[in-house]
Amino acid sequence: MDLNQIRKDLAVFAKDREWDRFHSVRNLSLAMVGEVGELAELLQWVDDKEISRFLASGGRERLGEELSDILFYLVRLADIADLDLESAIRAKLGENSLKYPTEKSKGSAKKYNELG
Amino acid sequence: MDLNQIRKDLAVFAKDREWDRFHSVRNLSLAMVGEVGELAELLQWVDDKEISRFLASGGRERLGEELSDILFYLVRLADIADLDLESAIRAKLGENSLKYPTEKSKGSAKKYNELG
Amino acid sequence: MDLNQIRKDLAVFAKDREWDRFHSVRNLSLAMVGEVGELAELLQWVDDKEISRFLASGGRERLGEELSDILFYLVRLADIADLDLESAIRAKLGENSLKYPTEKSKGSAKKYNELG
Amino acid sequence: MDLNQIRKDLAVFAKDREWDRFHSVRNLSLAMVGEVGELAELLQWVDDKEISRFLASGGRERLGEELSDILFYLVRLADIADLDLESAIRAKLGENSLKYPTEKSKGSAKKYNELG
Repeated sequence: MDLNQIRKDLAVFAKDREWDRFHSVRNLSLAMVGEVGELAELLQWVDDKEISRFLASGGRERLGEELSDILFYLVRLADIADLDLESAIRAKLGENSLKYPTEKSKGSAKKYNELG
Repeated sequence: MDLNQIRKDLAVFAKDREWDRFHSVRNLSLAMVGEVGELAELLQWVDDKEISRFLASGGRERLGEELSDILFYLVRLADIADLDLESAIRAKLGENSLKYPTEKSKGSAKKYNELG
Repeated sequence: MDLNQIRKDLAVFAKDREWDRFHSVRNLSLAMVGEVGELAELLQWVDDKEISRFLASGGRERLGEELSDILFYLVRLADIADLDLESAIRAKLGENSLKYPTEKSKGSAKKYNELG
Repeated sequence: MDLNQIRKDLAVFAKDREWDRFHSVRNLSLAMVGEVGELAELLQWVDDKEISRFLASGGRERLGEELSDILFYLVRLADIADLDLESAIRAKLGENSLKYPTEKSKGSAKKYNELG
């Protein structure tokens, strides 16, 4: 599934509903925070060791719904900010490879600026 | 850019660094919250009317970096939870079309369950 | 420690630095999201079963710092929105007692509207 | 209103409902993220210039409810992590005074490490 296609679909969806006036950078950011809150709410009482059971009993579908909502606001936010999300992603992937060389970061959860 | 390809790239990246042990559903969710926090920090003192100036003076690039980080954790989270993100996205797009019929939701920021 | 006193201290602190112009409702909300993100970052790679060790080895102090930062923005936000936080808290405590009667909610993580 | 008293009230509330088993550090953190998400949802379509009207037409009360919920999880989290929130707050207030000297930070939204 193509990110750029999702962007176009969402732009048409918003235009058809005259939602552009609501879709400012800060509004979409707060909307995304709201969806991240719903994701957290799904997981708040599910201890680490209960995650498999949670996923198997309907949690996987609900998680997929929340992740989709977050993604929509994320893609829409990039579009409204007039930034090329695909280029940004490519740049960040390259940067992460440099920041986290395989040998130094193997098995370590340290941030790049704390790697020995 | 293909979402499924990003998923594969991130899986290889994590495997090479032996990061799978850190990438549980709740860990990745908290990591995503951390990145959303960095996005909010970028925008916290930028009033609505100052957004254009912010974007033009380096803000667009920084926004693109944070959105990429959020997206990476989102895609990785779906992968670890063994859920098909593309199907979830398609289902949600269809659902949103039903929830927000063009006529009823035109120009309104109301939630679907508050539409007249 | 008195919440109202914290409110007054923070108001003086902001006034002395001419920060009132930055402290709008949405700015402070985004700033709070930023601090919540820092809290999440602290905990993102600490599995449930490693929390005690984390707290004992410096984590408790860092957690206290993040919680203080969140609290400051929360108290300041209430002040700027001209709302009486203490009354709101009292009302919510009373409401929670009604929503979650001891017998019905004992040992259950269900939301009040899902209680049998 | 005394923070320590709120802490005690919430501890009794949780104990009466046998909720201690749910109230781990990470669970309460995710629950707090959920409430912050609800706060963001309140404000997501309210542009900066519409905040006064929002507050006057019921928004102030709803904001007070969300802030109370966030505060409850925050206070409870400190209690469960066995950290002295009041000491942490005092330490942070003192630290902020040092980090942001009145003269240098007057009228500036810069972070302490970016002050000239």
